[in-house]
Amino acid sequence: MERTLILDTLKFIGKEVEVRGWISVKRDHGKITFLDLRDRSGIIQVVGSGTEFSSLKPEWVIKIKGIVKKRPEKLFNPKLPTGKVEIEGKNVEVLSRAQELPFDLAKEDLDLQLPTLLDYRTLVLRHPKIKKIFKVQEAVMEGFRKASQTLGCTEIFTPTISASATEGGAEVFKLDYYGHSAFMIQSPQLYKQMLIPAFERVYLISHAYRAEPSITTRHLSESIQMDCEIGFVDYGQLLDALEFVGVETLKYVEEKCETILKDFKIDKLKINAKIPRLTMREAQEVIKVRTGIDHTKDPDLAPEDEREICKWALEEKQSDLVTITHYPTKKRAFYTMPDPQNPEYSLSYDLLFRGMEILSGSQ
Amino acid sequence: MERTLILDTLKFIGKEVEVRGWISVKRDHGKITFLDLRDRSGIIQVVGSGTEFSSLKPEWVIKIKGIVKKRPEKLFNPKLPTGKVEIEGKNVEVLSRAQELPFDLAKEDLDLQLPTLLDYRTLVLRHPKIKKIFKVQEAVMEGFRKASQTLGCTEIFTPTISASATEGGAEVFKLDYYGHSAFMIQSPQLYKQMLIPAFERVYLISHAYRAEPSITTRHLSESIQMDCEIGFVDYGQLLDALEFVGVETLKYVEEKCETILKDFKIDKLKINAKIPRLTMREAQEVIKVRTGIDHTKDPDLAPEDEREICKWALEEKQSDLVTITHYPTKKRAFYTMPDPQNPEYSLSYDLLFRGMEILSGSQ
Repeated sequence: MERTLILDTLKFIGKEVEVRGWISVKRDHGKITFLDLRDRSGIIQVVGSGTEFSSLKPEWVIKIKGIVKKRPEKLFNPKLPTGKVEIEGKNVEVLSRAQELPFDLAKEDLDLQLPTLLDYRTLVLRHPKIKKIFKVQEAVMEGFRKASQTLGCTEIFTPTISASATEGGAEVFKLDYYGHSAFMIQSPQLYKQMLIPAFERVYLISHAYRAEPSITTRHLSESIQMDCEIGFVDYGQLLDALEFVGVETLKYVEEKCETILKDFKIDKLKINAKIPRLTMREAQEVIKVRTGIDHTKDPDLAPEDEREICKWALEEKQSDLVTITHYPTKKRAFYTMPDPQNPEYSLSYDLLFRGMEILSGSQ
Repeated sequence: MERTLILDTLKFIGKEVEVRGWISVKRDHGKITFLDLRDRSGIIQVVGSGTEFSSLKPEWVIKIKGIVKKRPEKLFNPKLPTGKVEIEGKNVEVLSRAQELPFDLAKEDLDLQLPTLLDYRTLVLRHPKIKKIFKVQEAVMEGFRKASQTLGCTEIFTPTISASATEGGAEVFKLDYYGHSAFMIQSPQLYKQMLIPAFERVYLISHAYRAEPSITTRHLSESIQMDCEIGFVDYGQLLDALEFVGVETLKYVEEKCETILKDFKIDKLKINAKIPRLTMREAQEVIKVRTGIDHTKDPDLAPEDEREICKWALEEKQSDLVTITHYPTKKRAFYTMPDPQNPEYSLSYDLLFRGMEILSGSQ
């Protein structure tokens, strides 16, 4: 019998289907067993009886034949696209057994400590909330690619093993390369720049590596980086391009992941035609006025400053986004252009979104 | 003045424009200088006079103001989309000078030795033929993504630093990871498999690393790998999916890169609805009959065998593609499923295209 995807069962009410998937949840009610079965298309409730069904366990992989039945209206489950139907299971074939689960995957929130989450990563990845994060990630990447393509960028792929460290500093992973020393790149920056004379505008999604032994969300040994590089633009046009990529990516995610964002109770985007732009020093002045705390001599915005200036942007400019420019030249990578007007500061920028830096770069 | 992209000059015949780009070619004819100027949209001929123009050199970056003129019909250049016009240059601003070029980038073929090509990679990348390779690469990736999305795969991104070697063997790059040993992954295989219970079908474009000190096109220290992994399919459905991805990717490239493939004199695709499938042993028998050379005891197809069986597919089945199945279990990675009918051979496959393996995998 041909397999039917779970979402497609809606087209087969009253008919027999064969579905295959993983048991997400199992509930026993006397002689009757209820299963939530999932495949890539969705989740459906399966009802069965007898030991054939009662012996099943969560995360077992099964193949079930049964009749698609409409549920009584009062038993509709509005949370599931298949919530108006269920399968009356006739027989089950177990394709693969799972060991006893170390925790309850059926809980709405896993609520476990980080070591447990990491030790059981293969299980954790199956949890609906975790899966949703991956779907958002997928949309971020697709949105970024679309925005970059709209800007006329060529997609490139560059090496990650390099003969020398990209940005200096000790925070670089060293590799034995056939008896020579090599390094994992900290940024694809130099490769991008090499390709500008060929394509003028390029983009890439690549891995970057930093051997920073710190445990914060701002320090990642290995990260996935989205990069655009464009030639022949002045600083203003560059900021336009930055904001275009940021806005288009966010809008794409909002459209593509509408249901997921609703599940996570994420507010709708607030984006103005004109995104507020402040120099770092201007931002520090705003923060001083708002909070009374004087960070105007600091060489960078601290995480709490980023949160505060985003609050300001939302309250005063109705904008989820704010662009901060002109960070001190000393604080940025060597390839950042100093401002010809005032070389102490650089033609650099960060795009902040709801309290966090999401894009960064420079002339 | 606003910059006009070179391709857009066609809309401004008789008008003044400002274009910016790199000088690809410079030719002096007495007092007159001809430039081929390129930007990301194309190439245009610029005519100018005086030392302002005669002092320019290849690969200088310039900004030119001038009038777009229609060329006399006999001087049309059919090779350029802008071949019916040229710019009568009025003034030039040099944005960036280049050093004297070590070789002539204007030649149709660079015809240089590999060490020279590598030493001057930043220059070589600007050559039209090399750029075209990158445009084909871009189309391959986009075609692969579209095909994978059509199959219902979720795009994933996985780490490349791993605590243990993926496929065993000594051919792995070792890394110092905060005082511990770590390895660069040889394949994202295990990560993909971990995500099957979450998404059932996944795809990714990732880097893979193999410390094989050999210089052949089959040995790459670092390579970019396109991967699909799909659950709940039998071997036949898996081969269907393999061929779907191969065919859709090739078709996308053919459509997207029509002009480039014509420039390289690449034949049009010959793809049958049904791609010929042979076991490795069957392929060796065919080769023996065709060439008289007996490789029927070999544990794998040699490169010349792959070329020969592709010749057969083209001549006998009018197909640029041929799928070879059932390689010896011993020759494939540990996660390859042996054929239950005959465990000495495995449910593995290679998809060959015009003499070369382009996709490979297994149940």
